[in-house]
Amino acid sequence: MQLAALKHRTESEDCFVISQHHVRIRFHSAKNDVKKVIVHYTDNYLDTKTDKTVAMTKAGQGQVTDYWVATLKAPYRRLKYTFEVVGQDDSHKIVGDRGIKDFTAANLAADSSYFKLPYLHEIDQTKTPDWIKNTVWYQIFPERFANGDKNNDPQGTKPWNPQDHPGREDFYGGDLQGIIDHLDYLKELGVNGLYLCPVFKASSNHKYDTIDYLQIDPDFGDKDLFAKFVSEAHKRGMKVMLDAVFNHLGGQSMQWQDVIKNGTKSRFASWFHINHFPVKPYQGPEAGGPNYDTFAFEGQMPKLNTANPAVQDFLLEIATYWVKYFDIDAWRLDVANEVDHHFWRKFHDALTAIKPDFYIVGEIWHSARPWLNGDEFSAVMNYPYTLQIEEHFLHKTKTAQELVAALTDQLMMYRDCTNQAMMNMLDSHDTARLLTLAGENKALALQTLTFMFMQTGSPCIYYGTEMGMTGGEDPDCRKPMDWQKEGTPFWYKVQKLIAFRNNHAATLGNGTISLSLTSTGLIKVKRIGTEKITALFNTSPDKIAVSTNGQVALSQNFAAGQLAEHGFVIELAN
Amino acid sequence: MQLAALKHRTESEDCFVISQHHVRIRFHSAKNDVKKVIVHYTDNYLDTKTDKTVAMTKAGQGQVTDYWVATLKAPYRRLKYTFEVVGQDDSHKIVGDRGIKDFTAANLAADSSYFKLPYLHEIDQTKTPDWIKNTVWYQIFPERFANGDKNNDPQGTKPWNPQDHPGREDFYGGDLQGIIDHLDYLKELGVNGLYLCPVFKASSNHKYDTIDYLQIDPDFGDKDLFAKFVSEAHKRGMKVMLDAVFNHLGGQSMQWQDVIKNGTKSRFASWFHINHFPVKPYQGPEAGGPNYDTFAFEGQMPKLNTANPAVQDFLLEIATYWVKYFDIDAWRLDVANEVDHHFWRKFHDALTAIKPDFYIVGEIWHSARPWLNGDEFSAVMNYPYTLQIEEHFLHKTKTAQELVAALTDQLMMYRDCTNQAMMNMLDSHDTARLLTLAGENKALALQTLTFMFMQTGSPCIYYGTEMGMTGGEDPDCRKPMDWQKEGTPFWYKVQKLIAFRNNHAATLGNGTISLSLTSTGLIKVKRIGTEKITALFNTSPDKIAVSTNGQVALSQNFAAGQLAEHGFVIELAN
Repeated sequence: MQLAALKHRTESEDCFVISQHHVRIRFHSAKNDVKKVIVHYTDNYLDTKTDKTVAMTKAGQGQVTDYWVATLKAPYRRLKYTFEVVGQDDSHKIVGDRGIKDFTAANLAADSSYFKLPYLHEIDQTKTPDWIKNTVWYQIFPERFANGDKNNDPQGTKPWNPQDHPGREDFYGGDLQGIIDHLDYLKELGVNGLYLCPVFKASSNHKYDTIDYLQIDPDFGDKDLFAKFVSEAHKRGMKVMLDAVFNHLGGQSMQWQDVIKNGTKSRFASWFHINHFPVKPYQGPEAGGPNYDTFAFEGQMPKLNTANPAVQDFLLEIATYWVKYFDIDAWRLDVANEVDHHFWRKFHDALTAIKPDFYIVGEIWHSARPWLNGDEFSAVMNYPYTLQIEEHFLHKTKTAQELVAALTDQLMMYRDCTNQAMMNMLDSHDTARLLTLAGENKALALQTLTFMFMQTGSPCIYYGTEMGMTGGEDPDCRKPMDWQKEGTPFWYKVQKLIAFRNNHAATLGNGTISLSLTSTGLIKVKRIGTEKITALFNTSPDKIAVSTNGQVALSQNFAAGQLAEHGFVIELAN
Repeated sequence: MQLAALKHRTESEDCFVISQHHVRIRFHSAKNDVKKVIVHYTDNYLDTKTDKTVAMTKAGQGQVTDYWVATLKAPYRRLKYTFEVVGQDDSHKIVGDRGIKDFTAANLAADSSYFKLPYLHEIDQTKTPDWIKNTVWYQIFPERFANGDKNNDPQGTKPWNPQDHPGREDFYGGDLQGIIDHLDYLKELGVNGLYLCPVFKASSNHKYDTIDYLQIDPDFGDKDLFAKFVSEAHKRGMKVMLDAVFNHLGGQSMQWQDVIKNGTKSRFASWFHINHFPVKPYQGPEAGGPNYDTFAFEGQMPKLNTANPAVQDFLLEIATYWVKYFDIDAWRLDVANEVDHHFWRKFHDALTAIKPDFYIVGEIWHSARPWLNGDEFSAVMNYPYTLQIEEHFLHKTKTAQELVAALTDQLMMYRDCTNQAMMNMLDSHDTARLLTLAGENKALALQTLTFMFMQTGSPCIYYGTEMGMTGGEDPDCRKPMDWQKEGTPFWYKVQKLIAFRNNHAATLGNGTISLSLTSTGLIKVKRIGTEKITALFNTSPDKIAVSTNGQVALSQNFAAGQLAEHGFVIELAN
């Protein structure tokens, strides 16, 4: 047995409280190396003679790891537990708090063989909002969604042509009124969460270069209109998420300009990370000594010192303002990984004090365990998950087997409730569009989208995906919305997929997931909740036979028991 | 190569900031399975073509794991890094954020192959007080250390007889004046930290059943005398640590009595974890339905609900009171693991706001990673480390090889600065005495004590150990101090050992440690800091040849190049 692969970490994604008296436990072993794992457990203050046992379930297979899970009950909210492991080579071990021991009665009786969960505190339990599990997001890039008010169009606004390839500096006149005008459209499409890219006063079309966080950009409308938008969205059962950049300020901000002018005497001198005064803007690492910290190597994006209480106040006032007075439901945080954890804990506390089920999603492109322990973010934009889906379905750089393993590894990095809150998207304002990535093959795009919808996590549709819009990398992915394409066959398929997610949210949002490959080479996603849902995907060029037993709820390229290329079939069974 | 054993976890004990621009990185592989590990790293926003490389050092060998370490420099306070691993079988892999890949130029160039450290925030850095690294603790059980004032002796005080076997309810009259009278003695012994078991008003001799946290027990003295004690200790360069029980209240406390009397109408009803009203005291899990949570199954120790802000205020007022007005330097926290993490973060923040280098040590008998990330405790009572020392040296239930592996595994569970702050002790008021555990063999006791003094962490001497006192399990380990034994040969050896620790604190407190077994079977502890210190221990019955090169600073049972049973030799080299 590969002993160094036997792993468990207390109070982490391997051991987390799921209710007042229940704990979920995971255990890792080398792939195909272990026959069975049995948990022995009892109360911390009871003799190990009172041990109960439970056989762990093999929940999935990662790249090199088998994952085992079990749920334990703690009548007195305390647990000690240890793992009995039987190898394929029949070696028989105990894995506990002080390492690995032979499986003997004496070792099983020793308190030091047990991991300890001293007390199941509700206040320490990692939780995510319930509503997110029933949410299908729709991402709006406000300048390009719909122009509802010609009066606020910026100078030089171009005609609304969805065939255009927008330039970096182009304006098309999209605004809040345009969004309000289309709320019924969005309701009909079926989405119930609206994620808006920045709407605060800024000079660019994308508005990521915030000038004033407490003002709606005049190109988009004003606060009254924004209040109306939130209220109308809420009336339709839709949540509203805004986008914030708290890592750095713009170079033209009042604070940074004051530092440039007044140096150490500026009252904002300690708002940034300045290594030497006077501040000299710089253009990159090769261009001589940078003397302040920036986002990337952007001299015009000085990094905020979020350890400074004045900066914390400034940002927390902004963050809470839009919740207290406009009732938004969520923040998406730009460059979230580069801001300190202490600040995010304060941010989390400030927001959940106002709205206990507030949703916070960080933009983090890499694995994100440090932010997802319940006291910072609810979730992250799940790129490490969805990019791997694209690597297999769209780019063919990963085999089906590799995909299943990679996704399983990703799922095992986080607690279940975190996975359920993840924001899953295949494209956004920062990437090429799904249909373009799919080589304009609509069946492939829909297959990939369907696969994403079958995953744990909250799916997000980028505006225009339902219209079958195309577009390369930014800024080409930011074309004006093609309103002509509403009601095309593709649109109805997307609508049907969203409806399926909504109608089966109890299982797709909350249920367990297991990913595997069938013997015939199909990718199988099995979800178990209030229902059993099985989805099969054919990502090979060959037709593959499928015998369906339950009710076929959705399918593509499926006929006469054959699943063709880009095909999928989703079955319901009770 | 055992791929499932290749492990690294970002922002944990495997990856921690040690200064503004430096990060320490650890990597795990199966024992003797890997030839070399090379870190490739650069700034997050630079191309991987700018990668630097560093070969990792094999820092130690655990039970089944090899541990590799390196220190990386981050000029812009950001890092991406990946591990190139070469197996003993010459397989050649990259281990990064999305799993294991073959070592190829393309894989090494891919951003997804890299772990990310987005920004090195000082506010998130785990730090421990510097002074702890120079501290030798001395634990005092106040009722048994010295009787300095006959006037406050409780009724029925027994004569001060160090040969007595104390009963559970006996009183011997020890008090604060007795401690003050012996501060010069403690100074002569060489200790510079005094850890006092509880001194607050309580009814028992051990005072763990606190009645009033804001009052000094009248048997011990009063607040004026306590203030004098702290001031006199500080004058002699000694830190003062008090003992607090914040997990539960006594059954006779005003709050619990109010709940029993008034039920749901009590203003303390939400101070506890009450499952059903009315509250019925209970005696254990078998004696019918417990209806409130307790410490262990002690009906007289109702558990406090530390998620309740009123309880938090109550405890934080106590915790800060003794710091603000009496200038204590540290708290030792009883049953620390059963109190919630949210409370301990508030506790940490409240105390370090008053004294930035305040030391907080939790009583936790198992592995304690969740409490030791810099925002809760500085350290814990290091039982999982020291008990394993006893298992080898005193109980012979672990071989020397097993000990070296087990201690290495323990050291790799925590960041370096946490290991340096650990409170290491071989006995206490909760265990039998060292000399008794050593079968009254003084050479063996001194050898074990010396081994502990050579470890990373702050050593703690239980009162009377220096006198060669004996005693079985509690209450036998709480005999009145044997003041007659001052100045015996054993006493001078302990004094010399303490002096050695103090004179070499820069290396023993801050230096690196590596543990190994020599080819001749000696246990070797190598410490490197401002000096190089090598300590060799013979725990076999045989004489073993040792050739010394440097200056022999301390030794026992060492003559003519031979180290006999219970022998040790400590060498200094520059």
